Amino acid sequence: MNSVYIIGIGLIGGSFALDIRKQYPNATIYGVDHNESHLDEALALNLIDEKAELSDLQNADLVILSIPVDAASEKLSTILDVVSDNTLVMDVGSTKLPVCKSVDNHPKRRNFLATHPIAGTEFSGPKAAIANLYQHKTLIICEVEKTAFKLQERALKLFSDLGMRIRYMNPEAHDKHIAYVSHLSHISSFMLGKTVIEKEKNERDIFDMAGSGFASTVRLAKSSPAMWTPIFKQNKENVIETLEEYIHNLTHFKAMMEQDDFEAIFDEMQNTNHIKDILNGIK
Amino acid sequence: MNSVYIIGIGLIGGSFALDIRKQYPNATIYGVDHNESHLDEALALNLIDEKAELSDLQNADLVILSIPVDAASEKLSTILDVVSDNTLVMDVGSTKLPVCKSVDNHPKRRNFLATHPIAGTEFSGPKAAIANLYQHKTLIICEVEKTAFKLQERALKLFSDLGMRIRYMNPEAHDKHIAYVSHLSHISSFMLGKTVIEKEKNERDIFDMAGSGFASTVRLAKSSPAMWTPIFKQNKENVIETLEEYIHNLTHFKAMMEQDDFEAIFDEMQNTNHIKDILNGIK
Repeated sequence: MNSVYIIGIGLIGGSFALDIRKQYPNATIYGVDHNESHLDEALALNLIDEKAELSDLQNADLVILSIPVDAASEKLSTILDVVSDNTLVMDVGSTKLPVCKSVDNHPKRRNFLATHPIAGTEFSGPKAAIANLYQHKTLIICEVEKTAFKLQERALKLFSDLGMRIRYMNPEAHDKHIAYVSHLSHISSFMLGKTVIEKEKNERDIFDMAGSGFASTVRLAKSSPAMWTPIFKQNKENVIETLEEYIHNLTHFKAMMEQDDFEAIFDEMQNTNHIKDILNGIK
Repeated sequence: MNSVYIIGIGLIGGSFALDIRKQYPNATIYGVDHNESHLDEALALNLIDEKAELSDLQNADLVILSIPVDAASEKLSTILDVVSDNTLVMDVGSTKLPVCKSVDNHPKRRNFLATHPIAGTEFSGPKAAIANLYQHKTLIICEVEKTAFKLQERALKLFSDLGMRIRYMNPEAHDKHIAYVSHLSHISSFMLGKTVIEKEKNERDIFDMAGSGFASTVRLAKSSPAMWTPIFKQNKENVIETLEEYIHNLTHFKAMMEQDDFEAIFDEMQNTNHIKDILNGIK
């Protein structure tokens, strides 16, 4: 890989840049971003070697599309129009059905690989990029059979070099399940933050009472609205379903409290304790 | 301090034992626990020097009552009956009004100090004890004026030796605000865990899709039901109020999604982003 273009050089794209530079020292890494100051930061941080434009992609070996999911679905077609037959284009968004659908009938569909690395932090922008972010993390690949063999091979070598473990799914299943294990967590965290901020807005020193448990539970409420709004929009049906079930469970918990049924509350918590086993292995 | 009794030698009591042993090397630390195997573990881990009984408290300089809040409210009176005039008895529970009320008219009320260290993890039992757990953590003290001066002084020296920062509140305010910044987080986390486990019970490998965000948000769902059920019971009114507001906010978020009002969703998340500033300083 000599020529790598990263479109959207924030946390996710920038972290790919760091690891690709390490694994492929001969590669030139180009950054494309509509945010000029992010490009300057990315240069200063040595994430990228040069700034570039979408029109420069002709000779790319690899294009990583790491921009909000609505923009990715919009731009992917145009990107495929530009690239050569030998270019691998991958997206890394948190929804997979819309982006796959957007190029389903594109003549260069075989140049595209739909992926979702389960990695990140609540921060964003080039300064949030982290070396080895992807090591030992899951990468979900959708519709692998629609990507050209030689480009599948190039992609799998990259993911292996970065230390990722691969899981194959169809985009419908991905979007349905990720709503539960990721998108719902973000909403629960944002709404927890909102509830506490609203209540306590006139009593700032109350936050001295908050400990590491609260910090952990609302951590995701620091996440970027520009990234998350399009995710909720694209995965609307699935996310609404998770919210309905979550609200139902909370309402049931409240009813048990109102009925003084603390035995049932004990059981409820005990039954959920085995989340321990499930979390083993998630860092 | 020569003689320290810790009643309930788990995460909280055990962590006090570790730090007291370091700061007061001449003190003998006694463990009292209805769970005999916890006492044996605490001995093996060198948290305590000797096992003891409630009836041995006569000569204690310090008694730390670190058992579930319902048991603490029940037993505190009996403990005060036994101790000498020179004994400081402190509880460390996550609710303060019931324990304060339980001894309001006790002839030895001035031997008691009501505290709540904002420290801990989702684990429990003697093996969960951690050295320096309390360093730089907030300790809330309630009704300090009801404790004898010389015992206040002893307590404040201890907290200072352990590196804690002190905040004084009345028990009503403590219980109201802690419902928001701690108790609600636990319920949101337990119900998130429940929602995901229920949905995904037949698809275990879906949890390969869960990342650090999910892990962070459901971490508290590993907490001990034996500890948390009595907290919810004792703080029922306040917790129900927080749940109502949380459910209201989630329902509103769902309605905005149903109405495709993603601008409002963006604003909602952006307004909550300043939780960043609030969390600064919470480890």
